[in-house]
Amino acid sequence: MNLVLLEESDFTEPNRVAVTGERFMHVKKIIRAREGSTLACGKINGNTGTGRVTSITRNGFEMEVDLNLAPPAPLPLALVLALPRPKMLKRILQSVTSLGVKEIYLINSWRVEKSFWLSDLLEMERMERHLKLGLSQAKDTMMPVIHLKRYFTAFVKEELPELAKNKIRILAHPKTSQVCPAGVNKEAILLIGPEGGFIDQEVDTLAALGFVPYTIGPRILRVETAVTALISRLYT
Amino acid sequence: MNLVLLEESDFTEPNRVAVTGERFMHVKKIIRAREGSTLACGKINGNTGTGRVTSITRNGFEMEVDLNLAPPAPLPLALVLALPRPKMLKRILQSVTSLGVKEIYLINSWRVEKSFWLSDLLEMERMERHLKLGLSQAKDTMMPVIHLKRYFTAFVKEELPELAKNKIRILAHPKTSQVCPAGVNKEAILLIGPEGGFIDQEVDTLAALGFVPYTIGPRILRVETAVTALISRLYT
Repeated sequence: MNLVLLEESDFTEPNRVAVTGERFMHVKKIIRAREGSTLACGKINGNTGTGRVTSITRNGFEMEVDLNLAPPAPLPLALVLALPRPKMLKRILQSVTSLGVKEIYLINSWRVEKSFWLSDLLEMERMERHLKLGLSQAKDTMMPVIHLKRYFTAFVKEELPELAKNKIRILAHPKTSQVCPAGVNKEAILLIGPEGGFIDQEVDTLAALGFVPYTIGPRILRVETAVTALISRLYT
Repeated sequence: MNLVLLEESDFTEPNRVAVTGERFMHVKKIIRAREGSTLACGKINGNTGTGRVTSITRNGFEMEVDLNLAPPAPLPLALVLALPRPKMLKRILQSVTSLGVKEIYLINSWRVEKSFWLSDLLEMERMERHLKLGLSQAKDTMMPVIHLKRYFTAFVKEELPELAKNKIRILAHPKTSQVCPAGVNKEAILLIGPEGGFIDQEVDTLAALGFVPYTIGPRILRVETAVTALISRLYT
């Protein structure tokens, strides 16, 4: 936890907060803060800055906060990801949030196991926990937005064309020879398939919308490694 | 498993193998191979190619193999990593292996928890399991070499100068303003500290050996995300 992420409900006055629960336990046991300690903090979807611990009790701590810095710039990227298995999804939500992704679409595709859509993790509150861990890690405050798109064809036909407008369209696809550009550093939309990749018919549908299938080399990566590798390659 | 990784001991004849155990279970249950199926395979530290399944029994399967392709090119990178917590180390070994890293140094540093050095995972055989998963994922065969360096000062003074010779020297360090170069694509040595980073004195010692401290931006990443992000940035 590199930043204490503050919720609206933590504020007792405009510049005072009372924090309990998991964040309190972390600040007490791992950071070992005391009265007078200064902690990096930030308000969800607001500024970052510092907090001075004014009191610590059995159940929580209070801080006087000074939040006048903008959070780090977001990546101008929409990430569209075939729904991965829940355990991997947790880590991906956290890592892409720490990397600065703000728009996440989790979509169906032929090779996505149906059972993944039944996971408890897909409840927004549970996913938000992992987004917050990613924000707190990266000293960011701006919550990513997650969109669940259970129907591939409906999403691709009805929403994707508008979403992809004026963006560089990248389809990560191991079975092609064109090498993915590096240092794009512009508005882009990145599509990443499931383990095993999108099927040919899906690739054709996406290519018809202007998505160029790119590889990052002969090595096939696990989805969680590929996501970080691709994002780091696109934004340098 | 994108490639069945074959051990010397699997070979019953120069072009015939008998495979049992975990790989057999995967081929049977996940890949659902049958007699006549063709599987991508490769010999550890040797060529890759294909195998044709000639028989499947209760305990294993046999293949006739044709291994005449070189494995994918290795990355010209030595990775020097402050020993991470065991759970994260497993994933890192697997991901960096899939990315093509062949030289891995796990070193001590001030902020490495002493208990990490007591983990069972550090037995070579146990680490090799994760390396093999990474190879098998990336359709590679060349085993990375892991070096355990329990004494920071001894390693840095006695081995690092020789190891770093003629290599681009990169020290990942969040607390600097110089931005890490992208697309280096040359022989390099990359040093990554523990959660919380190298301490100032360590950074000074490393800088004196010609390592330049670089950041990849204001976002602090978890070590496992940072490792993949940095490698993907350096080799594009």
